[in-house]
Amino acid sequence: MEPKKASETLTITTKIVLPNETNTMGNLFGGQLLAWMDVSASVAAHRLCRQTVVTASVNNVSFDHSIPHAAIVTLQAKVSRSFKSSMEVFIDVYIEHPKSGEQTKCNEAIYTFVAIGEDGKPVPVPEVIPETKEEIARYNGALRRKQLSLILAGKMKPNEATELKALFFGE
Amino acid sequence: MEPKKASETLTITTKIVLPNETNTMGNLFGGQLLAWMDVSASVAAHRLCRQTVVTASVNNVSFDHSIPHAAIVTLQAKVSRSFKSSMEVFIDVYIEHPKSGEQTKCNEAIYTFVAIGEDGKPVPVPEVIPETKEEIARYNGALRRKQLSLILAGKMKPNEATELKALFFGE
Amino acid sequence: MEPKKASETLTITTKIVLPNETNTMGNLFGGQLLAWMDVSASVAAHRLCRQTVVTASVNNVSFDHSIPHAAIVTLQAKVSRSFKSSMEVFIDVYIEHPKSGEQTKCNEAIYTFVAIGEDGKPVPVPEVIPETKEEIARYNGALRRKQLSLILAGKMKPNEATELKALFFGE
Amino acid sequence: MEPKKASETLTITTKIVLPNETNTMGNLFGGQLLAWMDVSASVAAHRLCRQTVVTASVNNVSFDHSIPHAAIVTLQAKVSRSFKSSMEVFIDVYIEHPKSGEQTKCNEAIYTFVAIGEDGKPVPVPEVIPETKEEIARYNGALRRKQLSLILAGKMKPNEATELKALFFGE
Amino acid sequence: MEPKKASETLTITTKIVLPNETNTMGNLFGGQLLAWMDVSASVAAHRLCRQTVVTASVNNVSFDHSIPHAAIVTLQAKVSRSFKSSMEVFIDVYIEHPKSGEQTKCNEAIYTFVAIGEDGKPVPVPEVIPETKEEIARYNGALRRKQLSLILAGKMKPNEATELKALFFGE
Amino acid sequence: MEPKKASETLTITTKIVLPNETNTMGNLFGGQLLAWMDVSASVAAHRLCRQTVVTASVNNVSFDHSIPHAAIVTLQAKVSRSFKSSMEVFIDVYIEHPKSGEQTKCNEAIYTFVAIGEDGKPVPVPEVIPETKEEIARYNGALRRKQLSLILAGKMKPNEATELKALFFGE
Repeated sequence: MEPKKASETLTITTKIVLPNETNTMGNLFGGQLLAWMDVSASVAAHRLCRQTVVTASVNNVSFDHSIPHAAIVTLQAKVSRSFKSSMEVFIDVYIEHPKSGEQTKCNEAIYTFVAIGEDGKPVPVPEVIPETKEEIARYNGALRRKQLSLILAGKMKPNEATELKALFFGE
Repeated sequence: MEPKKASETLTITTKIVLPNETNTMGNLFGGQLLAWMDVSASVAAHRLCRQTVVTASVNNVSFDHSIPHAAIVTLQAKVSRSFKSSMEVFIDVYIEHPKSGEQTKCNEAIYTFVAIGEDGKPVPVPEVIPETKEEIARYNGALRRKQLSLILAGKMKPNEATELKALFFGE
Repeated sequence: MEPKKASETLTITTKIVLPNETNTMGNLFGGQLLAWMDVSASVAAHRLCRQTVVTASVNNVSFDHSIPHAAIVTLQAKVSRSFKSSMEVFIDVYIEHPKSGEQTKCNEAIYTFVAIGEDGKPVPVPEVIPETKEEIARYNGALRRKQLSLILAGKMKPNEATELKALFFGE
Repeated sequence: MEPKKASETLTITTKIVLPNETNTMGNLFGGQLLAWMDVSASVAAHRLCRQTVVTASVNNVSFDHSIPHAAIVTLQAKVSRSFKSSMEVFIDVYIEHPKSGEQTKCNEAIYTFVAIGEDGKPVPVPEVIPETKEEIARYNGALRRKQLSLILAGKMKPNEATELKALFFGE
Repeated sequence: MEPKKASETLTITTKIVLPNETNTMGNLFGGQLLAWMDVSASVAAHRLCRQTVVTASVNNVSFDHSIPHAAIVTLQAKVSRSFKSSMEVFIDVYIEHPKSGEQTKCNEAIYTFVAIGEDGKPVPVPEVIPETKEEIARYNGALRRKQLSLILAGKMKPNEATELKALFFGE
Repeated sequence: MEPKKASETLTITTKIVLPNETNTMGNLFGGQLLAWMDVSASVAAHRLCRQTVVTASVNNVSFDHSIPHAAIVTLQAKVSRSFKSSMEVFIDVYIEHPKSGEQTKCNEAIYTFVAIGEDGKPVPVPEVIPETKEEIARYNGALRRKQLSLILAGKMKPNEATELKALFFGE
């Protein structure tokens, strides 16, 4: 299976926040954004492996800035790294300033997907080749995040998490 | 007001056709696609003029190929030409082959938007600079389509439609 | 196949514009209206042919007046003319004045549908008999609009469009 | 306030049952039908009084026949009788046979609305003039149903319900 | 089939009223509440019989208090009594005061469901054992309501409705 | 501000997975579940502090088991611990076996909310008193998870994360 560049998985989606997508404070409803990110991220994962993909976990989503009604919102999803049959996807969310057109990042999220074959079982996926500085940083951080998940889920012992331990003992 | 390149208005939106977006035959519901195109095209129009825009008309939408459930669909909207305060926007719709990733065009639509100021009245918009062969062809065709609309709406006499007459008498 | 009167295809739908159907300016979202018209028009087309019908194109929709939140909206769809297996449908949209009950027309749209058989291929549809003055005018205009579409799509040469040429040379 | 004919309040709405309106058995979701009826009936009530109307109660809805996916459904709502500021509305629901076009009644519902003025308090509404045999029967039954509601809610003593008692002692 | 306690069928659902669930006055749209109640009540009915259940009728829903946007709403559905294969379900709707947390009852509804087997025909359901004072009162009233429905539908003669007659002759 | 028991924040929501909530494989759409959890969890957070709450982050959601169409799903949200003005909420998701009624846990999620005052700024929230074994374990783990988030976000140095370090050096 040939590796693919991270950039080949880039999935862009631009939306306008309509009234039926707002919360009780008149901003984009967080649950709606989570649903949009799930769709965008799953397309990015699919573009890496060209298999059916299912959401395995949402690892981290930060809602740093609320997104107001009528905002133009752009989601950019890209696979950061793959492990056997799982893929970590970053979704960056931007608001576009209505007058200047400037894009401001307002949210960042990490979702994990698993590729499954026709028998419903996990299938291997291609490796990811990071190119930009950000792609490389996210690629490197992915292993640390994976170990963390495994420890928190009780599936790995802390002393086996070499990547993660380095974080505490210095590198 | 400085003219803008057509490409600066490009608005991309990628979706997966979910069950609640299908029609009674299990394909993407036409009304849903029309709604998606309205949002994408209005962002493209907004990106030209950076004003509030309202849909003035849907001039032509062809549903050449039905889009099946679970398809990955990409909408690309781009302003083709502007006239005083109105903007013609083309929306090209592509399906992505799940295995090869090849993009096949399945629909094409033309929407017109009007820019309005804070007083609710039309305001002038920048001109469009077409660059690619397709952008130029669409830019040139826009005047013909505009004259046609005016004639059909009884707002222009056929013999005043110079662009359109050329179509019948040769050029 | 026996012809049917245009009036036999009349399809009426009355709605109230709810908050989750509004755009960012608090009026009926254009995409939502396009979806409603698609449903109404497809019932009208179905009532002519009693076959499965699919949206072939949206030929023209003018959004002359915005429709405010809470408005009572009535859509009236009626087949204007049929051609072999395709049907042109007009949709007239009215707002009802809350106090006087007076109906004001605010939008007009033209959609085209194709009847398909169980094998997914186009099947012939009955002819339409126009009766009122408006039905007759729309019936007569339908051929001109059809030729126009074919020319614009490059499927007919301008000099073959006899109906349309008459428009420019007088009748 | 001039009385109005029941027929002047008639409100027609035709729909196609789309996949996102079905229940887990593939038929029209009952909750969706209840919501559709609420909108249609409120327009009928509004057409009687031309005031803001609010749903006061749903008195009876029978789901005699399930409505399958893709069915063409028509709701006909009409005010049956008014009492000071309340209005009883009947909603008859029909399915259209796809081939013959025959309309079969599949549901019947009774909703009650109250007209409210700008201060949020109930305002008087015009009387209803029933004309057809069915309109007269429903008009006559309305008082009996009103007494019944009052008794069941503990707001009327059974021996005051003259209309209703007649039902048990014969007329 | 072993009887079940009414409390074993209790189904709780807590929601926040979002903008896309409001009516034109900014309160919870009645049709939306009817749909929510249909789902909650059908789970309660299912919990009694553990069979597929379908909504047979909505017998009474009173909208005593409008529910404002952003309110926290709790639905409590519980089977009050069963008859052969039908089940009467009460749904009590409460609003939670945002500061004190106090629950205030704002609506009450009665729905009836029928249990159906794999062949689509009604199947018997367990009896209900009422325990609290309210459960017993509702259990006792269920027969009266059933007779009433049958009479109003013309399926029972008034003099056969022993339970109901007692209401008029005093007990 | 008086502390509250974790159990006082418990928020229960029971749903049936309807066709318009499914993904392309016929299971509950992950994005829909994320939206449901957001609503349930925000009610739990509100019940602790009785202030307006906004989603600050989704810390971890595992989709261990897909939830099929027509399943009865119950979400149980409960605040695990609070820090100044933020609250960590656990959401446990259960499927109910249609015949036995047995509840099986299929998903677990952690969301964080912030309480905000009328000026839009964070306000202090009460402390949480954990009682059950699970509540205590989650309460204790909350600090570790908070430190982890701060480190990953670059807002805390690893050697300051005393709770977390213990994880690697043994306790």
